[in-house]
Amino acid sequence: MKLQALFEKNIKINFPFLIGEKLLIACSGGLDSVVLTHLMKQLECEIALAHCNFSLRGKESDGDEMFVIGLAKSLEIPVFAETFDTKKFAEEHKISTQMAARDLRYNWFAEILKDFKYDYLLTAHHLDDDLETFFINLTRGTGLNGLTGIPKENNKIIRPLLKFSRQEILQYAETNNFKWREDSSNQKTDYLRNKLRLEVLPKFKETNESILKNFQKTQQNLQASQNLIDDYMGLVFKLVISGGSNSYKINIQKLKELPNTDALLYELLHGFGFTEWDDVSNLLDAQTGKMVFSKTHQLLKNRDELILTEISDENISEEFLVPKTGITSPINLKIETSKYIGETEKNLIYIASEKLKFPLKLRKWRSGDSFQPFGMKGKKKLSKFFKDEKIPLTEKEKIWLLLIDDQVVWVIGHRMDDRFKVTENTSEILKISYLKNN
Amino acid sequence: MKLQALFEKNIKINFPFLIGEKLLIACSGGLDSVVLTHLMKQLECEIALAHCNFSLRGKESDGDEMFVIGLAKSLEIPVFAETFDTKKFAEEHKISTQMAARDLRYNWFAEILKDFKYDYLLTAHHLDDDLETFFINLTRGTGLNGLTGIPKENNKIIRPLLKFSRQEILQYAETNNFKWREDSSNQKTDYLRNKLRLEVLPKFKETNESILKNFQKTQQNLQASQNLIDDYMGLVFKLVISGGSNSYKINIQKLKELPNTDALLYELLHGFGFTEWDDVSNLLDAQTGKMVFSKTHQLLKNRDELILTEISDENISEEFLVPKTGITSPINLKIETSKYIGETEKNLIYIASEKLKFPLKLRKWRSGDSFQPFGMKGKKKLSKFFKDEKIPLTEKEKIWLLLIDDQVVWVIGHRMDDRFKVTENTSEILKISYLKNN
Repeated sequence: MKLQALFEKNIKINFPFLIGEKLLIACSGGLDSVVLTHLMKQLECEIALAHCNFSLRGKESDGDEMFVIGLAKSLEIPVFAETFDTKKFAEEHKISTQMAARDLRYNWFAEILKDFKYDYLLTAHHLDDDLETFFINLTRGTGLNGLTGIPKENNKIIRPLLKFSRQEILQYAETNNFKWREDSSNQKTDYLRNKLRLEVLPKFKETNESILKNFQKTQQNLQASQNLIDDYMGLVFKLVISGGSNSYKINIQKLKELPNTDALLYELLHGFGFTEWDDVSNLLDAQTGKMVFSKTHQLLKNRDELILTEISDENISEEFLVPKTGITSPINLKIETSKYIGETEKNLIYIASEKLKFPLKLRKWRSGDSFQPFGMKGKKKLSKFFKDEKIPLTEKEKIWLLLIDDQVVWVIGHRMDDRFKVTENTSEILKISYLKNN
Repeated sequence: MKLQALFEKNIKINFPFLIGEKLLIACSGGLDSVVLTHLMKQLECEIALAHCNFSLRGKESDGDEMFVIGLAKSLEIPVFAETFDTKKFAEEHKISTQMAARDLRYNWFAEILKDFKYDYLLTAHHLDDDLETFFINLTRGTGLNGLTGIPKENNKIIRPLLKFSRQEILQYAETNNFKWREDSSNQKTDYLRNKLRLEVLPKFKETNESILKNFQKTQQNLQASQNLIDDYMGLVFKLVISGGSNSYKINIQKLKELPNTDALLYELLHGFGFTEWDDVSNLLDAQTGKMVFSKTHQLLKNRDELILTEISDENISEEFLVPKTGITSPINLKIETSKYIGETEKNLIYIASEKLKFPLKLRKWRSGDSFQPFGMKGKKKLSKFFKDEKIPLTEKEKIWLLLIDDQVVWVIGHRMDDRFKVTENTSEILKISYLKNN
């Protein structure tokens, strides 16, 4: 059967809800999205193209944009085109160019869907993309979920070409004399994907004639396995979890009665950003009060329960100003000038006044914070520092920082930052004491 | 840490039960099994070597055997060596040389374990073997179970090198100046494994420094997922299955109330050799009496149940002789000479006598059988023929074949084989009728 017929069959069977709807097609101008556009044009849908110009390849990027606009014109369909300063966005958000392009593109698509009342976004991912993603995850280490493939349907994003290979798509395009744009960056930007695409996968495909078909079947089987795990976790959830909305309580007793407790803990909690699974697992037998943190959640051992709570943005970002004189809150610091340098203790530091800029700031530490521990040359992550100092989890949670802007001055109760120490040039010495007020 | 220390740690943590036991090491004389032998020699176990000479590489095979005997002598440990006629065994059992070698070797090892009271068999499979097996299964299409890896422990077979890479093993052997035999057939016999080993995996490994470590982690995660499915299936089994020993009954009603019914059916039944999963799945809504077969089992729809029964060896292999004259059993065939060719019907054929050789044979058809349908040039699998002819499952089960040796003469009640038709050279025509006697 020809691709057009197979494609229509695929739509009828797997995406019948698309027929008659308003559909936005993400169109780069490359082979895959151009073929998707032509295929969709022949169905009874109201389609439009959306093209992102990421300004990453100068004239070539502009050429792609012009091409897509021309394609839309020749097919007499609407087109949306937008130019982004991807490099700037990446720098501002401290993410890779690739991540930036991804964020920009999906955010913009979502806006169009909403503003112009399109029902679905269609992307041109195909079977070879899926195979590449499988291999990418495999090289990095993954689990069942990382091997089940790109979803053919995910919220409002539909991928109707996912069943078809690059080869089939190319052949269809050549037979029909379609024009498309070659993206020169395919050869450059994504080292891993290109290494796989150009060196590993061609050899892999040579091993078996029906390898792509077999791969598709494998992914269906893996998805079926994942579905069973999800069903099982539904039962386990009912059995061991209480609470909801703001916090979940896991009944440790009931959880331990089930086999493969650690795997269950992983399935229950991996959506909440935890990464230190040994710590999570140890919590089951830890003393009441012990905690483990992810970036967004905390897990507290409390008698026979683990209590999962979201760390609210408020909590995590709450900052307090510390004036040079007067009361500090929420913890009690006493700041005074000193004529001499005494012994620095855990709860007492001597510091060079000229290096400070009041008001200082007070907040809890966050993962990602780092400082230059007193007596050391280089910087150290706080998480590493706490680990090396063998500071228990319960205590870690309570640790406050004294800062200038985002620069740590003192890990209160533990260690000051070397950059603020008193030197022979210091004209005014400040003595800061931490007066525990609870 | 050096390999020796890592290996000992691995034994202590994962295989503490080996210490002090009588252990048989499968030793080909190649790098991996030689290293395993040296590593085990340093532990407090009573070890012996077992070497199979498969007679596949002439003098080289004999050289391997002499080498292993020499190794055992130098280490002052017992050695078992046996020579097999692998090619003959393969021909006799109609299996590949590789399968033959595998069967011979594991059967022989099991005998030694039993006769000489060894506690475990140790094989030298390592992490790269595991990665190769993962890829082999992937090329063929597989599921979760095919991706969880070679078991490090399986009954009496232990694989204590599975954590270690070929590179680590080679380095250890070179550092210690071990001698071993290179197997020239590594380069030849197993096309797929060698293609992966020599072309695909080296490129794959270049993508990430810690790829083998990541792969190990991936397999652990997949195994954890498989464990959860097994736990879930334990619950499902209790809920929907009754009976036992000779036959299981699956309660269709209860099964259908659970989500992902097809995936559950697969998990419940895939151990019984079924391959036509659509047929199995359709059975849920079929009429009472419909059946699906695997090579070893039948699944019968009976009201609100699926009944799984083993097909006994007796049934499946029972063959009956058909003399040229007299009564045939268990079905009633009438054989007579004929002066003319009449119309061939479903239950009546005309056949060239000189091509037959009495007694003929009568047996039920088996999956794997094929014949040359009357009027066709090429051969066709019976399973394909039945499918094309749209023969219902219930009927398929009852179909008998008339054969000369293993050559199909007539698919009784359906189609004769083209090779036995009457031609202008035929001197005697036989008319065979199938008289339904039930």
